[in-house]
Amino acid sequence: MERRAKRYNELWVTEEQTSNMKLSLRINQILINKKSEYQDILLVETFEYGRMLILDGAIQIAERDEFCYSEMMAHIVLCAHPSPKRVLIVGGGDGGVLREVLRHKEVEKATLIDIDKEVINASKKYLPTISCAMDDPRADVQSMDALAYISSVSNEFDVAIIDSTDPVDFAAGLFEADFYSDVKRALKEDGMMLAQTESPFSDSNVVVGAFQEIKKVYPITSLCWGAMPTYPTGIWTYTIGSKKLDPSVPRCPAPEGTKYYTTEIHKAAFVLPPFLKKLLDKA
Amino acid sequence: MERRAKRYNELWVTEEQTSNMKLSLRINQILINKKSEYQDILLVETFEYGRMLILDGAIQIAERDEFCYSEMMAHIVLCAHPSPKRVLIVGGGDGGVLREVLRHKEVEKATLIDIDKEVINASKKYLPTISCAMDDPRADVQSMDALAYISSVSNEFDVAIIDSTDPVDFAAGLFEADFYSDVKRALKEDGMMLAQTESPFSDSNVVVGAFQEIKKVYPITSLCWGAMPTYPTGIWTYTIGSKKLDPSVPRCPAPEGTKYYTTEIHKAAFVLPPFLKKLLDKA
Repeated sequence: MERRAKRYNELWVTEEQTSNMKLSLRINQILINKKSEYQDILLVETFEYGRMLILDGAIQIAERDEFCYSEMMAHIVLCAHPSPKRVLIVGGGDGGVLREVLRHKEVEKATLIDIDKEVINASKKYLPTISCAMDDPRADVQSMDALAYISSVSNEFDVAIIDSTDPVDFAAGLFEADFYSDVKRALKEDGMMLAQTESPFSDSNVVVGAFQEIKKVYPITSLCWGAMPTYPTGIWTYTIGSKKLDPSVPRCPAPEGTKYYTTEIHKAAFVLPPFLKKLLDKA
Repeated sequence: MERRAKRYNELWVTEEQTSNMKLSLRINQILINKKSEYQDILLVETFEYGRMLILDGAIQIAERDEFCYSEMMAHIVLCAHPSPKRVLIVGGGDGGVLREVLRHKEVEKATLIDIDKEVINASKKYLPTISCAMDDPRADVQSMDALAYISSVSNEFDVAIIDSTDPVDFAAGLFEADFYSDVKRALKEDGMMLAQTESPFSDSNVVVGAFQEIKKVYPITSLCWGAMPTYPTGIWTYTIGSKKLDPSVPRCPAPEGTKYYTTEIHKAAFVLPPFLKKLLDKA
């Protein structure tokens, strides 16, 4: 029998980014692998990106690159608003966006509504650098159906951030005009909302669809983009619906401690390549 | 025996982006799969990105997203230079960067030096939308060792573009100060060079290393970045060494027909997130 070099066990997790494209990451350990009432929850430690939360097979957030996403989600609208005191986060149970929202000293209260309590608990237990702001006295974290919550409030928030999963299953309603209209009613008269709206390369139909739906409801609709390595194609879009103010104009300085966002990045994020402008012309 | 749904053959190609991360693409057909004198050449048709050239296992260029890379490689330096008449392209045997260079009407001659004639021929045969400018009378396409070519010329080019493969094997020398110094001698007194310098997430050591080496040689060293979906992490850096002029300032208008580059994108590409600035502080 021939000798062979010592071999090691390898564990990999694979995301089907589309039916024709997969990203695989080598993992060190599995921390959670269970079904909640709403979805499959997988929390693993990857060698490339640190700990990572995966819901129904889709990568949600990883320790090493989440700052790109969390900062864009929070600071674009919070810095475009002249005085953001009351903030609503829909989804975002990991707490990354909440952490960035609470970097803004002028925020008095941030309400986070995620449908799945088990996601919130998983993040609290295993993703401390992401969930760390949940204990802030200004944080109001609730697990309930955001659609039900939103339909019960009006004229309450300066800014709303829609940190949803992909537009399938229970999250599909978060990409429709009826929901955006409810959010509009929940906003004050100079309020604005921002939603994550997927990749312009692999999900251009979602980008166009969300833009169309938001445009039906808000007088000002605008799109910006940024880097996000663990999401399909590495490029992500964020679409803003605003009742009064142009969201591409930064009105407040960047909070301290950011790794992705600056006032200059804010302006640059609204500069769109022609292929992306052309995509929005369809909307 | 139970009946089962009809199943289909699936062919996938996988790139090891790092030892801990892999991208897989479903393919329709294999057009070339051979060894040249220098490298393994694989040319496949993918469902997600159209036809794709892979060298030694690394994705080089794909029909559907190459515009992001080809345009940044060409237009940043060609638009920053006030009058680019003579252009050198090192590598880039697929012809994508050459096509973009020749969109500039003021370019009188573009010399492309790729070590591997078989890459040039593969692109001519199977990637017509990418290689289409090789027959332009202003194109001078040669297959030889760029290191040898460069050491024989001086004061000849306005702009040089280093479209190399990853810094391993025969391409490693293209990331060193000696080479950048030879390129400097080949440039005219207001000349500038741009090199692709990998991802700030997965290859931060290459980003820092190339910046250091270029800085040793050029009075002005500057880095910009952009989207590139089929490259690891989707974000790519481009580093410029300039003898006299600030490359972040666009001096010529964008050529017609671009899908990624505009004058505004030029300026935005030099706006760096703090994490990337911090990386360069090490250089």
